[in-house]
Amino acid sequence: MIHIAVDAMGGDNAPESNVKGAVLALNENEDIKITLIGKEKQISKILKDQKYDYKRLNIMNATETIETGDEPAKAVLKKKDSSLVLGMKMLKNKEADAFVSAGSSGAILVGGQIIAGYAGNVRRAPLVVEMPTMKGYSLLLDCGANVDAKPEYLVQFAVMGSIYAKYILGVENPTVGLLNIGTEEYKGNSLTRETYPLLKDCDKINFVGNVEAREITEGTCDVFVCDAFAGNIALKMFEGTAKTLLKMIKGSLMTSFKGKLGGLLIKPSLKSLISKVDASEHGGAPLLGLSGLVMKAHGNSTEKQIKYAILQCIDFKKNDLSDKIEKALAK
Amino acid sequence: MIHIAVDAMGGDNAPESNVKGAVLALNENEDIKITLIGKEKQISKILKDQKYDYKRLNIMNATETIETGDEPAKAVLKKKDSSLVLGMKMLKNKEADAFVSAGSSGAILVGGQIIAGYAGNVRRAPLVVEMPTMKGYSLLLDCGANVDAKPEYLVQFAVMGSIYAKYILGVENPTVGLLNIGTEEYKGNSLTRETYPLLKDCDKINFVGNVEAREITEGTCDVFVCDAFAGNIALKMFEGTAKTLLKMIKGSLMTSFKGKLGGLLIKPSLKSLISKVDASEHGGAPLLGLSGLVMKAHGNSTEKQIKYAILQCIDFKKNDLSDKIEKALAK
Repeated sequence: MIHIAVDAMGGDNAPESNVKGAVLALNENEDIKITLIGKEKQISKILKDQKYDYKRLNIMNATETIETGDEPAKAVLKKKDSSLVLGMKMLKNKEADAFVSAGSSGAILVGGQIIAGYAGNVRRAPLVVEMPTMKGYSLLLDCGANVDAKPEYLVQFAVMGSIYAKYILGVENPTVGLLNIGTEEYKGNSLTRETYPLLKDCDKINFVGNVEAREITEGTCDVFVCDAFAGNIALKMFEGTAKTLLKMIKGSLMTSFKGKLGGLLIKPSLKSLISKVDASEHGGAPLLGLSGLVMKAHGNSTEKQIKYAILQCIDFKKNDLSDKIEKALAK
Repeated sequence: MIHIAVDAMGGDNAPESNVKGAVLALNENEDIKITLIGKEKQISKILKDQKYDYKRLNIMNATETIETGDEPAKAVLKKKDSSLVLGMKMLKNKEADAFVSAGSSGAILVGGQIIAGYAGNVRRAPLVVEMPTMKGYSLLLDCGANVDAKPEYLVQFAVMGSIYAKYILGVENPTVGLLNIGTEEYKGNSLTRETYPLLKDCDKINFVGNVEAREITEGTCDVFVCDAFAGNIALKMFEGTAKTLLKMIKGSLMTSFKGKLGGLLIKPSLKSLISKVDASEHGGAPLLGLSGLVMKAHGNSTEKQIKYAILQCIDFKKNDLSDKIEKALAK
């Protein structure tokens, strides 16, 4: 039985979406049990109308809630009885295998690193996103956890990403590219120029060199490694461009009768494409390299997305990803 | 008469596209004269079959060529009789108003800063791209010239971008956003955190705060300021995502009869959209803040794109952009 703690209070649609999402996940998979952490009364009220296996769900009361506006580090240190802090403590104490939260990104990142703590020799925990590409999915990391990263962090990210790609995406000997502004070895800023030789010398990965951002959606590598600033720019630019482009297409079709008719005909094809591109369909982004698994769900997650984020944790636990990362990065 | 020097030898399709592009520009606009710099024999051979106003075109022989594979700084210092170095010298000596090149990006950036030199108190010259947005066009700078930038460079970029937006795009009191990974003031890496208060205090710009990368295509600001690493990631991610998405749409339409028929009907709408999105249609990206104007054209520029890059220089000269930048950044 895999035990997943769920932050009932984090996110724009909490607690309703979080609680209902947990119930959906329970009903879809019999191998999990869930602890919902948050204001007990509110959670119970929502659960009253739901049908699920009572034995696999329990509630842990949390009197405090970390808000999006709270300064992350302060909030994590002060709100000791918040759902986020209690969830991270469960990970640290091995009382849960994973913790899912749609709460404040900053607080999740700080809480994960300070409270749950790093696995073994891990120096920093990167946030990983599965990016849709021409060929399927590639991993982009770090997407938002560690700005001002050091070269040795990026090398660890490359190793963690490779393990993720191998065991979760099922890619044998995954290729790793260093996200850069040119492909030549001498290109880039001081971080990428110092990281390149370290990746080249690392025998735990299949390093293929520098790659430009346009190669991400082409899927030329299985793992794209970068610091969190670059990764976040790439991720948000992807989301923004896709959204804008689809809006523009819609708009341009509306200007002519032929376009309108064509638009109706292509609607089903576009819809399936949009759902592939829409990162939010994919539930959560894991924070790798911590004691246990932290799964960050989108702040505006619906119950369906919370369900996905919860179910996503199963593969990570079944493949013992945390242990594998700890062993790979052991000295 | 505006005098534009054109690098006949730089780029994948040189010298043919460069020479023919110059002729197209000459024939389209009577206010310019052009100096084609490169191997005289090759240039003359291509010109032989072209019709144009002979009085407004001359050739400057250059015995050397800087190749894409050359290490930029070395090439600029050693190949003193290359088309690129000669063009930059013309700018420095005020013998030309602008220099257009589709050659090695690295060499253009190095040559511009070392040979042409900065205008007045300019500390670094940013590469500027006009990004297509939901609302029209916004400026993204720096897109590739200065990695490892300092906060004071970014402030200068903001001022230069504002002048560009005002006089070239015709935006009154253009808004400036600092490209970042969150909108709160405390978000970001050390560079953006140190830059934020400087931008806030700068009375020469209309600073609106931090903006995320997804806002670029939404066009929420007129000017997006960042260091060259982040800017290049954003630009390439934009190009890659747009290209991939359009390919995916095409692919998904081909899977059904309805899709195929719909695809035929929407073709004209899509085509005009693609040309809006396709950055390469826009000719060149200016390198601002130098003595004279350096206009970087795409490496794979066609003659049409070279023509656009040349014609783009006219507005910059007519509006005395270099002088305005120099004055705005005077101590």
